[in-house]
Amino acid sequence: MALTVVGTMAFDEIETPFGKSGKIIGGSATYIAWAASNFVQPVNQVSVVGEDFPQAEMDALTARGVALDGVQVKKGEKSFYWSGKYHMDMNTRDSLVTDLNVLADFNPVIPDSYQGSEFLILGNLTPQVQMSVIEQLTVRPKLIVMDTMNFWMEAALDDLLKVLQKVDVLMVNDSEARQLSGEYSLVKAAKKILTMGPRYLIIKKGEHGALLFHENHVFFAPAMPLDDVYDPTGAGDTFAGGFIGYLAKTRDISFENMKTAIIVGSAMASFCVEKFGTSRLREVTHEELTTRLEQFVQLVNFDIDLV
Amino acid sequence: MALTVVGTMAFDEIETPFGKSGKIIGGSATYIAWAASNFVQPVNQVSVVGEDFPQAEMDALTARGVALDGVQVKKGEKSFYWSGKYHMDMNTRDSLVTDLNVLADFNPVIPDSYQGSEFLILGNLTPQVQMSVIEQLTVRPKLIVMDTMNFWMEAALDDLLKVLQKVDVLMVNDSEARQLSGEYSLVKAAKKILTMGPRYLIIKKGEHGALLFHENHVFFAPAMPLDDVYDPTGAGDTFAGGFIGYLAKTRDISFENMKTAIIVGSAMASFCVEKFGTSRLREVTHEELTTRLEQFVQLVNFDIDLV
Repeated sequence: MALTVVGTMAFDEIETPFGKSGKIIGGSATYIAWAASNFVQPVNQVSVVGEDFPQAEMDALTARGVALDGVQVKKGEKSFYWSGKYHMDMNTRDSLVTDLNVLADFNPVIPDSYQGSEFLILGNLTPQVQMSVIEQLTVRPKLIVMDTMNFWMEAALDDLLKVLQKVDVLMVNDSEARQLSGEYSLVKAAKKILTMGPRYLIIKKGEHGALLFHENHVFFAPAMPLDDVYDPTGAGDTFAGGFIGYLAKTRDISFENMKTAIIVGSAMASFCVEKFGTSRLREVTHEELTTRLEQFVQLVNFDIDLV
Repeated sequence: MALTVVGTMAFDEIETPFGKSGKIIGGSATYIAWAASNFVQPVNQVSVVGEDFPQAEMDALTARGVALDGVQVKKGEKSFYWSGKYHMDMNTRDSLVTDLNVLADFNPVIPDSYQGSEFLILGNLTPQVQMSVIEQLTVRPKLIVMDTMNFWMEAALDDLLKVLQKVDVLMVNDSEARQLSGEYSLVKAAKKILTMGPRYLIIKKGEHGALLFHENHVFFAPAMPLDDVYDPTGAGDTFAGGFIGYLAKTRDISFENMKTAIIVGSAMASFCVEKFGTSRLREVTHEELTTRLEQFVQLVNFDIDLV
């Protein structure tokens, strides 16, 4: 039931209407690992960092059952750095600084110890890096989940379309689904994207929840209404980590179980946004998760027998 | 189980990316009546029209079990007229023409035959008109539902706050909830609004669904993902009509039953947007409604036992 995670491990500096984070740990693979390690071990991490990346962070991940054999540490180089500022609605943000650093020429190498992972999640990275990971695996995983973003649809569409042919589940947000398909209606967008390779499509709508499409089926999971969204950074990756972590734990990739996995992902994301960076994620207890899941049941559960 | 509906009956002229409607029948009370009459009869209509309002429209409502004793017909005057154009996202629109006509000095008169209605819904109108209706009722209805809009929060806030004290359920959209409360977070907005009079608050989020707040409980109903939203005009009123119609039918105003009523309202709204104006609403069969409700169950139903 091992899970392999490919993505960034990085420094973020975030400003929201609630304050400034200072330089903190971020990156897609970081968020995915913190979320997924609640459900499955080992989490086989594939990433690249500079020598500025804190050892304490590595140790914390190791303690969570995250294997770091696939994390390259580049001597004399700096880790990926991003800083950004969120607007009042928390749905839009401006990137202030993006320093690729070690990410500029990242060539992932899959350690032998990771071979045979049943689950693979490709965090948002260049499609070439995502393809390289798929090609290095000696046995095709039971499930491959892929995240991407609008940038690659503009800068590397051909490569992106090739990777799409190789994956089972694509995760994008609503505007990316529209861009990739050329359709405004998300239902029509989903129908088109499901002809491009993935058999499952998850459309993330931030505070408005997420949709799962498969064949003619559609499932909707709301986001938990919260008093405050403190910092949305990493919420999508945390959602992805909860989703694939739960699937890897249960080893059931049916549509029905994916519904539950999406609720689990939504629950993890609802914790993520409560504090800056990964800080809230690191402290979530099993009891808190159980309570949050029960809140999701209450949030959407209704009785329609009377009609 | 009679239901009294107060609102506009009007002419609309609508342009969407799909086409132009020409001059068609609209108005909040019109949509509410068409939706609610699927569940409850009589629907006691309170409104005002000019002598230009088509008799055929009146006859169609009568055939649906809608009582028109409370609909004033003003000789020599014109009905309320609105025209508007929707943008591509269908969430924003420009009003092109708003001719109040008969609405400018509307003084509703509740016929004796309407007295004793157990359910009352106040469509979006001036707060003074809404208050006048409440004051004319000899017996307080079992449930009073009120719709309003941002315009009255700016033009008649004091009157609006007085009406709020008299109602059980307030329905507003997300931006109106923020404006009324001064809170950006919808959860915080709801907490504040629930201290202003209503015990229940419904926040409508258009294509993103609706939230029901009551004490410390919250329920979320998604909008049905559709291939196309053809014309969103009246969707909110149709939602309201389905909601109160179902409550009036079942005569159960518990929080649990309100959840179901919101799903019924969402189902009715999902039909409304499929064609211009009320045309799709008029033809919805019981079988279609049952099928749509089952789709809502499929849309949100998940099994969380495994966690």
